[in-house]
Amino acid sequence: MLEKLLAEVDSDLPNSIERLFQILRIPSISTDPAYRGSCEEAAEWMTTQLAELGFKSSKHATPGHPIVVGRDSGVASRFLFYGHYDVQPVDPLDLWDRDPFQPVVEEAPGGKAIRGRGSSDDKGQVMTFVEACRAWRKVFGRLPRKVSLVVEGEEECGSANVAPFLREHATELAAELGLICDTGLFADRTPAIVTMLRGSLNEEVVILGADRDLHSGIYGGLAINPIRVLAKIIADLHDDTGRIALEGFYDGVTDLPQVLAEQWTSLCFDHDEFLGAVGLNTPSGEAGREPLEAIWSRPTCDATGISGGYLGDGFKTVLPAKASAKVSFRLVGQQNPEKIRESFRAHVRNALPADCEADFISHGAHSAIEMATDHEAFGIARNALTEEWDDPAVFVGCGGSIPITTMFKEILGMDSMLIGFAKDSDQIHSPNEKYDLDSFRKGIRSWARILYALDS
Amino acid sequence: MLEKLLAEVDSDLPNSIERLFQILRIPSISTDPAYRGSCEEAAEWMTTQLAELGFKSSKHATPGHPIVVGRDSGVASRFLFYGHYDVQPVDPLDLWDRDPFQPVVEEAPGGKAIRGRGSSDDKGQVMTFVEACRAWRKVFGRLPRKVSLVVEGEEECGSANVAPFLREHATELAAELGLICDTGLFADRTPAIVTMLRGSLNEEVVILGADRDLHSGIYGGLAINPIRVLAKIIADLHDDTGRIALEGFYDGVTDLPQVLAEQWTSLCFDHDEFLGAVGLNTPSGEAGREPLEAIWSRPTCDATGISGGYLGDGFKTVLPAKASAKVSFRLVGQQNPEKIRESFRAHVRNALPADCEADFISHGAHSAIEMATDHEAFGIARNALTEEWDDPAVFVGCGGSIPITTMFKEILGMDSMLIGFAKDSDQIHSPNEKYDLDSFRKGIRSWARILYALDS
Repeated sequence: MLEKLLAEVDSDLPNSIERLFQILRIPSISTDPAYRGSCEEAAEWMTTQLAELGFKSSKHATPGHPIVVGRDSGVASRFLFYGHYDVQPVDPLDLWDRDPFQPVVEEAPGGKAIRGRGSSDDKGQVMTFVEACRAWRKVFGRLPRKVSLVVEGEEECGSANVAPFLREHATELAAELGLICDTGLFADRTPAIVTMLRGSLNEEVVILGADRDLHSGIYGGLAINPIRVLAKIIADLHDDTGRIALEGFYDGVTDLPQVLAEQWTSLCFDHDEFLGAVGLNTPSGEAGREPLEAIWSRPTCDATGISGGYLGDGFKTVLPAKASAKVSFRLVGQQNPEKIRESFRAHVRNALPADCEADFISHGAHSAIEMATDHEAFGIARNALTEEWDDPAVFVGCGGSIPITTMFKEILGMDSMLIGFAKDSDQIHSPNEKYDLDSFRKGIRSWARILYALDS
Repeated sequence: MLEKLLAEVDSDLPNSIERLFQILRIPSISTDPAYRGSCEEAAEWMTTQLAELGFKSSKHATPGHPIVVGRDSGVASRFLFYGHYDVQPVDPLDLWDRDPFQPVVEEAPGGKAIRGRGSSDDKGQVMTFVEACRAWRKVFGRLPRKVSLVVEGEEECGSANVAPFLREHATELAAELGLICDTGLFADRTPAIVTMLRGSLNEEVVILGADRDLHSGIYGGLAINPIRVLAKIIADLHDDTGRIALEGFYDGVTDLPQVLAEQWTSLCFDHDEFLGAVGLNTPSGEAGREPLEAIWSRPTCDATGISGGYLGDGFKTVLPAKASAKVSFRLVGQQNPEKIRESFRAHVRNALPADCEADFISHGAHSAIEMATDHEAFGIARNALTEEWDDPAVFVGCGGSIPITTMFKEILGMDSMLIGFAKDSDQIHSPNEKYDLDSFRKGIRSWARILYALDS
């Protein structure tokens, strides 16, 4: 029967692609209030899809964007699949080769690729699971047993409304294990299950000086310049060795255990290739750390946005009234996001000269997480992935944050199994995002295999 | 006859205001290519005005915006008036209380004020001279003798086309002295003639890292962040005492001569009031300098714009491919702008880590300037201003740059007499720019008095 299931996936692939295109065409940029209607539309589309497959499907309003739930009818689930239908903003738009929301399949250096915002993160990945369920239904006349789905619309802007939702629906959503499809292949080819994720803390700071923009000729030399104050604050976040210079920042950070260090070394990570793919050559982080260690198990701090003064073409001789920066921390081990937030704010306040104030905006925080891998599904999935990809599946770390894993753990008391098929070359969050057609096809087949092995 | 001339100014004031409104309504933002048509329109309007007054008026196309000339017919000029019809951008637009290009006269804390972009810088000031000529013509049936005007449209974006124009028309524009109305009253009440101006150097730098924006979770800890590189470059432009830390920057900077230091001290500059008016309290520049010295005779360096990464609402976990800053230097004494440009670029290049490059864009440069004040017009004007304002007129410095003074000196071989009626509270280059009605009226009367005294 597995062969029949996989054959169904392959024969229906053109229709799977067309269904993916339908949701890719909806510009569900969650962080930008202008796209609120599109987020609603994407949620509605997903609700309809799940209902069509036979899930007990519902769209739940939140103070933000809706959350879609598809439940196995009548039974408690063993597995709760999670994904998100929202996408990142598309700026800078002029770097896209085409409309980000008019997806196509096109030839790319690595083979055929589905091009468009959300093709990889996360609509394409979510649809690998949904399409596996569709094939399942076609072949077996029913849905896979004890599987439910929750698909949210605020992953790219902090998932603020998921935790309250999970709390409210904890009983009906309870399961043994979360299934999450929002990660990638290791080294663009090896199937991987993520068992360790960095946490994150996103802060925005606004430095305020004069009560208006000033002429740099008239006031220059006497009035404080918030850009200069902010630049020093950002520059002083790191010391000369690349360590983060906030008080207490490394509390709760431990060195990588020997066994994991050895396992990761055995992966033969090619950082030249990893960096070379985006035009870089040189690891630039904390001195004395291995590259995989640096991106999977060391904390970081990066300004992800900075602005102040005149930003347009030409030149304006202005001393701006304010300047602001968005700062993203990646956290590991037992680092406490709230303590680091306070330490960051203290760093800013200590750096303020006379006449300057600072406003802070919090954009969310969550701790790092490590999975217990003793649930049978981990072994089963590892085998199924190995079968599909002809390359032994591996357990890996992940530098990015997937906040839902923390919420699943804290609210539903379950670990998650993170399996995804994205590639480093997918340019997620960047112009010209793509998802390899091979990732999409083999992704659907991978889930079909995993569901088949778990359904017994 | 002087009384008659001044009475004519006063009785025609409502019409003078209406004529000023006509040009204020034209959004001639020179730095923004979108307003090219408006700059053309403003030039056309000015050309028509001058023709109406009896000047031999012409509009000259340039590679940028047109230059308007109004010449005394048939005789070599003694005085060449200069002003500009272009204005600064209006962002941030949401801080304006009204449309920047729908001027009104309204009650303000300091009395009635003309509100709108360009009301003070420089359309309102230019029109004090034009309206003085208009009154003169009405009373004397002719124009003031040996006075010509040149009004350009690129002062706010570097005046790139003025020097070539002056060179081409040097013979017909030759005069003894430039008259420039683009400065202010001292301490908002004392008529002042500027005899010393800082120069300027405007540079833009773009720091380039990866060939695309990256996900801060995936690459953070390994990939270089151009915002961090740029922040350090900006932070390191000053040392802890507020001195500018570029190699050779202070070459050609001398301490203020004792006599000028004493004269400036006698002005009893109230820096508490000066800074307090814009919400500040504390002089923030170079340690150990008097406030007037700091803004008139010391060089400065200020980032006037900075941008990189995601600048919109919400948060985007991106490691940007690039970050950029606009940096404005104010120069004094014999500082050489070209040497400082090279020193700045070397500072940037020396700070570049592996994988980063820098692009530079030059936005213009010119040296500081000091006037010889022995032309009889300086004494005559000082007396005329003292008469009008009931406060002894003074010779002062100016922190801002007025590049035309350098061009007049280098190309036409003449000094300039800078007289203006703007106030510190005018918010030039900022939202809600205004020009006091009193500045406008007494400005017209001041020029009428000066022209009368010079016409003998």
